[in-house]
Amino acid sequence: MDTTSIKTSLERVRTTHPLVHNITNYVTVNDCANALLAIDASPIMSDEPLDVGDIQTICGGLVINIGTLNQSTIAGMHEAAKVATELGHPIVLDPVGAGASALRTQTAADLLDAYPIAIVRGNISEIKALANGAASTRGVDVCPDDIVTDENLEASAAFARDFAARTGSVVAITGPIDIVADSTRSFAVRNGSKLQGRITGAGCMLSCITGAFAVANDDALLAALGAVCTTGVAGNLAEERMGELDGNLSFRTYLIDALYKLDGETLANRALVEDVQ
Amino acid sequence: MDTTSIKTSLERVRTTHPLVHNITNYVTVNDCANALLAIDASPIMSDEPLDVGDIQTICGGLVINIGTLNQSTIAGMHEAAKVATELGHPIVLDPVGAGASALRTQTAADLLDAYPIAIVRGNISEIKALANGAASTRGVDVCPDDIVTDENLEASAAFARDFAARTGSVVAITGPIDIVADSTRSFAVRNGSKLQGRITGAGCMLSCITGAFAVANDDALLAALGAVCTTGVAGNLAEERMGELDGNLSFRTYLIDALYKLDGETLANRALVEDVQ
Amino acid sequence: MDTTSIKTSLERVRTTHPLVHNITNYVTVNDCANALLAIDASPIMSDEPLDVGDIQTICGGLVINIGTLNQSTIAGMHEAAKVATELGHPIVLDPVGAGASALRTQTAADLLDAYPIAIVRGNISEIKALANGAASTRGVDVCPDDIVTDENLEASAAFARDFAARTGSVVAITGPIDIVADSTRSFAVRNGSKLQGRITGAGCMLSCITGAFAVANDDALLAALGAVCTTGVAGNLAEERMGELDGNLSFRTYLIDALYKLDGETLANRALVEDVQ
Repeated sequence: MDTTSIKTSLERVRTTHPLVHNITNYVTVNDCANALLAIDASPIMSDEPLDVGDIQTICGGLVINIGTLNQSTIAGMHEAAKVATELGHPIVLDPVGAGASALRTQTAADLLDAYPIAIVRGNISEIKALANGAASTRGVDVCPDDIVTDENLEASAAFARDFAARTGSVVAITGPIDIVADSTRSFAVRNGSKLQGRITGAGCMLSCITGAFAVANDDALLAALGAVCTTGVAGNLAEERMGELDGNLSFRTYLIDALYKLDGETLANRALVEDVQ
Repeated sequence: MDTTSIKTSLERVRTTHPLVHNITNYVTVNDCANALLAIDASPIMSDEPLDVGDIQTICGGLVINIGTLNQSTIAGMHEAAKVATELGHPIVLDPVGAGASALRTQTAADLLDAYPIAIVRGNISEIKALANGAASTRGVDVCPDDIVTDENLEASAAFARDFAARTGSVVAITGPIDIVADSTRSFAVRNGSKLQGRITGAGCMLSCITGAFAVANDDALLAALGAVCTTGVAGNLAEERMGELDGNLSFRTYLIDALYKLDGETLANRALVEDVQ
Repeated sequence: MDTTSIKTSLERVRTTHPLVHNITNYVTVNDCANALLAIDASPIMSDEPLDVGDIQTICGGLVINIGTLNQSTIAGMHEAAKVATELGHPIVLDPVGAGASALRTQTAADLLDAYPIAIVRGNISEIKALANGAASTRGVDVCPDDIVTDENLEASAAFARDFAARTGSVVAITGPIDIVADSTRSFAVRNGSKLQGRITGAGCMLSCITGAFAVANDDALLAALGAVCTTGVAGNLAEERMGELDGNLSFRTYLIDALYKLDGETLANRALVEDVQ
């Protein structure tokens, strides 16, 4: 995937203003909305089963994040995904905390089984929990043993391709090194800041941004890669802006500001993407 | 409406610290609370049907925002509005996304029918959806065809006065040019920043601020106009503070900061209000 | 309690990264998560009754905040508290708005009766409502008559010790002067900024931070005192950073940034703790 494609993937979002329906957790929902607005997308949130069908109908895609499930929102997720599927809209699934509880693992697995999920975006522990049915997640964090490193990079890429092949979804596994893969191609992205692990919502925002990219770009692999690079480069830019007294909340501001300011040219110049087989 | 009245309307909020009960969406609720605190009002959020009656009783007014409905919160809205009505407290309704789904349009229409809503605050598409029963909203955004411009300003003001006459509510229609009207008088306000459209919650915050103004000011038209000018001038001040690296999240900070710092004198000097008939 | 212990209490949090399960309100939940991340703790939010047991099992402690109750979350609070009790995990209770509604007062009282709450953290009006069964709270604010001052400091400390003796919980009563007490010892803390009263969530963040301290420190009195001092000193540092145009939202950023930057040494040097009997 060349950086010209990555550049174009962002520009398509900026010029088409995709309307994205998000069923997401109440912890980071405000950041998700502002992150979508930052990249010229338009967010709408709705989780009530009686509301989601109409809302999905007027949107271009759906993002489902299971970070704070309840029984009503689970029903809303299924109803919205059903309508999105009927309409051929891309669905992005963020399995927050899969592996940390039976309800989360089961809900994510059910959604993945029942609908043609375009892109799954999670950390490596969550994706492994979905792949294995094994509960090894440390809450919403990554288990230290799972982290993608240079040493296990090829094995991790193979795992990602295998997951993509089995589910039919593009997968974006994010962490210090991000992996984006479909069943045959896999890429590593080395952008981003350690500070993204010190704010809540870095992953949730990325999932929503991925939704916007998936609406604006027909190629799901390019959409996932464009979203991962956009967020990663914004993380780099945000870290460079940190002053002496700044902590994680200033970083959050700088991250969303950087998403707002980022143009395709800068993205192409700073994206650190490599083929990994 | 002269600017001395506008000035006084803000000063009444700052000196009386109105306690405002908000049933609002979970996307922007934190910004709403901080915006109320910024103008020296005191927010309380409660949507559980078993809780809202007691909470409304100790408050001076009620703000209902339908941005993220669910069946329990709809019941809470009705219960709270019933108690507010019995106590003679002003109610502000923000019909977020009316026109975008049947549930939203119906819920807003039901509330408007059943209770003496003091002020309805929305964008032009939402107000038209309520007026027409027609679903033409683009999610929570304005349809391009609907935008209030200099060309359609008098017609838009007439529409607003007519809506006010039919509903018995003051109406505040916000956008690039804001219109505030009761059944006989209508005003245009030309404050505010384009950046308010690039953050989530600009409208929600205004609705909550309108609630605080309505508690502190008996005249609902003055309350709505004071709130619209206050938020618009804060938007101008926030935009003036934007630096080279600042994006939409910095703008959000500057907007609420500007609400915090704004005094009646500055408000009166910068409010751009005109009679439109 | 010497300042070396206070210093150590923070350092224990920073080095052990306690995983804290929060059932908290949707108004300030994002700030709570970022405040926990700022002090190197790890937050997870879950309120669905079917989810909370598994989540509590993988965490070290539980924070319950009743700021926006609904019937499902009340059930989730009891289920989570039951599991925390079985596992011997510390529970922190924040009775937001106790006294403002029957549902809030009753829910807080029920939780306090049914489980061995390690620490109760609230403002003086909320704690008095719990102590007296009397409803005298002004929403989520303090009634002016209740404020802890130099004049009533010893009486307030005696009230706190008595409350601790009757409930078996450590109590942290926060305001212009904070009081932290168990049944026999009581301390006043004179850190913090008036601006903490002009943002939403200052109390909620403190309660979550208290949860992290309670997981990392076996001594509940030290945990509460460490958390109160940490938040208070961060408030002092944040206020010192305020610029001419800064308002309450900048203060919120500076507060969480200060939590992020605060080390044990600075905490020990700036904590203003005194014995009060």
